[in-house]
Amino acid sequence: MCPNAFEIAEQVRNRARTAISVTEEALHAIAAKNGKINAFTTITAERARKRAREIDKLIASGKDPGALAGVPFAAKDLFDIEAVVTKAGSKILASNPPAEQDAAAILALEQAGAVLVGALNMEEFAYGFLTDNAHYGPTRNPLDLQRTAGGSSGGTAAAVASGMVPLALGTDTNGSIRVPASFCGVVGMKPTFGCVDRTGMVPLAPSQDHVGWIGNCVEDVALAWRVLGRGAERAEKQAAPVVAVAGGYFAERMTEDVRKAMATAREHLDVRRTVEIPCPDVARAASYAITSSEASALRLGDLRDRPEQLDPSTRYRFLAGALLPAAWYIKGKRFQAWFRTQMEHLFKDVDVLLLPASPFVAPRFGDESTEIEGASYPVRPTIGRFTQPISSAGLPIVCLPVPGASRLPIGVQLVGPPNREDLVLAAALKLERSLAKSRPGE
Amino acid sequence: MCPNAFEIAEQVRNRARTAISVTEEALHAIAAKNGKINAFTTITAERARKRAREIDKLIASGKDPGALAGVPFAAKDLFDIEAVVTKAGSKILASNPPAEQDAAAILALEQAGAVLVGALNMEEFAYGFLTDNAHYGPTRNPLDLQRTAGGSSGGTAAAVASGMVPLALGTDTNGSIRVPASFCGVVGMKPTFGCVDRTGMVPLAPSQDHVGWIGNCVEDVALAWRVLGRGAERAEKQAAPVVAVAGGYFAERMTEDVRKAMATAREHLDVRRTVEIPCPDVARAASYAITSSEASALRLGDLRDRPEQLDPSTRYRFLAGALLPAAWYIKGKRFQAWFRTQMEHLFKDVDVLLLPASPFVAPRFGDESTEIEGASYPVRPTIGRFTQPISSAGLPIVCLPVPGASRLPIGVQLVGPPNREDLVLAAALKLERSLAKSRPGE
Repeated sequence: MCPNAFEIAEQVRNRARTAISVTEEALHAIAAKNGKINAFTTITAERARKRAREIDKLIASGKDPGALAGVPFAAKDLFDIEAVVTKAGSKILASNPPAEQDAAAILALEQAGAVLVGALNMEEFAYGFLTDNAHYGPTRNPLDLQRTAGGSSGGTAAAVASGMVPLALGTDTNGSIRVPASFCGVVGMKPTFGCVDRTGMVPLAPSQDHVGWIGNCVEDVALAWRVLGRGAERAEKQAAPVVAVAGGYFAERMTEDVRKAMATAREHLDVRRTVEIPCPDVARAASYAITSSEASALRLGDLRDRPEQLDPSTRYRFLAGALLPAAWYIKGKRFQAWFRTQMEHLFKDVDVLLLPASPFVAPRFGDESTEIEGASYPVRPTIGRFTQPISSAGLPIVCLPVPGASRLPIGVQLVGPPNREDLVLAAALKLERSLAKSRPGE
Repeated sequence: MCPNAFEIAEQVRNRARTAISVTEEALHAIAAKNGKINAFTTITAERARKRAREIDKLIASGKDPGALAGVPFAAKDLFDIEAVVTKAGSKILASNPPAEQDAAAILALEQAGAVLVGALNMEEFAYGFLTDNAHYGPTRNPLDLQRTAGGSSGGTAAAVASGMVPLALGTDTNGSIRVPASFCGVVGMKPTFGCVDRTGMVPLAPSQDHVGWIGNCVEDVALAWRVLGRGAERAEKQAAPVVAVAGGYFAERMTEDVRKAMATAREHLDVRRTVEIPCPDVARAASYAITSSEASALRLGDLRDRPEQLDPSTRYRFLAGALLPAAWYIKGKRFQAWFRTQMEHLFKDVDVLLLPASPFVAPRFGDESTEIEGASYPVRPTIGRFTQPISSAGLPIVCLPVPGASRLPIGVQLVGPPNREDLVLAAALKLERSLAKSRPGE
């Protein structure tokens, strides 16, 4: 339905299309598709039309509406939207008054000419990888409706993958952009921790919460980064980054699909080196202790006063987190500081690291266990195997789809040193272009 | 025995005395008095003599040995001293190898010409207000040997109050400089959090640990501040700071002694305003949750592997801290951030706050309860009533003795905005001078 964001913006700025016609197309696509996919929880049609007409007026008067002129986008339902209740996938927040102003990230995109069309479904309070939300229903994978779109930014990935919008905002604390991007076959980006303004966002775990976004191509996520990234100017351009693959833990416990995708990515990125990320198991535990403790600290009142209103699938996680001892959290935070330094050292020799994004393709709703290399693993706790360990380091990451063994998509992570989004985007662009060239029939 | 530090330094630099003679006097005083007081756990006589002779050589060759030329000092036994085992009042660390180099604070004082004469007794791991150490014995109050010198820097206060050294290093996490200074009738200083290098120090709770020191007069603690305070140059001089007294919580639950001292201090400082420190009870709970959690995180291994080697009076505190939920710690840290901002707002209208330092004079060893205004309170948990709440704000504080109703000393706190040690020291100097003038017979 919608082509890529950069193409839309070009067409709107060149008056090949109007912003209002693009917006109507997006609203039409949502009306046609959302019933089955359930990516949107709110559609802000009137606001979108008003905004689109403003863009068109600006263009008619010869003014530049910005780099995202007329690009429809949507935002995970934890970003404040003026006059809309920010629910964060919960029933508890649904009785809050509407937000008084837009979240900083929404404001920034609209100031660059983009047009907000709605809010997107998610795991309750962004805590989980499946977006099988008890209050607002599951978000279905556009490529196979029996499968999850991933989470917690499941609506974000599904809205883009189904062509309802070319760009959508989400968040990533332990993989909440990267997992759904991998499961839905779209491109996800999470920049360096702290680089994007989090004002007006419901937090999960403030020590690790990143604003992120999903698009159909690397050029689109790069475009959003240029708009949203404070300090993005610092980054130097580098045409041919040196990519290494992560070994050990990151080369173990994945399906043939993922192995195939990783081999393809290595080949296209000309990877000649393997590096070891230090203490991946501890890193994963630290991310978990930090997330669980901080998330539960924010929900103590709800656990006490209205636990029955929490989604059963997140309630037990909040309860578990509320019982974690402070010493574990403090050790997690101490490890995080050490790990960040170690990761920076690791980038002295290489520009970008290649890692799998998920250990398997999107699971079916209801699947409790999955088979990997002949052994059975529980689905939920295994999904984050490759995203969680590196989350606390706050590094910039692009996740993009690479053909695997099956018809379902699988993503890989390209990870760079802090504040070097340029390197990660350059590697992602190289991989994307190289894959496009090698596609049969092209 | 020893006069003030600034006088010693002046005399040594003017060749009125030699550094070695001052050092020998200090070592003599230690030999004569320490048996009864138990302030020192290690005496570094040979190192001190060597250092003193170096100072004298420097002076003989016409060089300036620094602002603390020939001033004997000692350091709480949690600062590393080269070739000495840093025990931090514990048995557990006593089997460690000797430290390989001096702590940064010791180095800084010696680089300014001071002469280290030994290490000082303390509560185990700096966790407590009594210095009734099960491993190394109680440090006795030089003004009444049946009473505590306070803690955790009990040796620090007692060494100065007894005239063994004119200056001593300690630490303050929740009052560990201020309480012993109050109980021993000496001047304690704790600068803004983060201003003094903590390298080479055994931590109690890194979020709140401050390096501090004790001397006999305001001029001496100011002199140490000029040597130890990184960024001390930033502070502007202000001759007559506006002092307000803290009301509410800080005007309640104190003995007549303390009321008398506070009234005297108000009068001499010309206090005309009362301000309210926000949420003092929550502030105290937050300080406690932070300290307890961080301290216990550092001792988890000991609690598991060798609990019987911990001092019984600190062991139960570490055990309790190990059981605190992470959410409490996170709430404490969140409150700390809010509280710091609130305290900065409060200083928009006044320069310095006057608070009591302890709710009563030094208790007798073995006293379990004490009477305040007709009600009985447990001693240990009540000592920190006035120091703990403001500790997490990291503000600069000078604690100095003010005559109360009894013969035993009592201190008051003068608290300033962040990085305005100049204001606090100016108020302290004003109070000290005004009290000296009004003293009978002077």
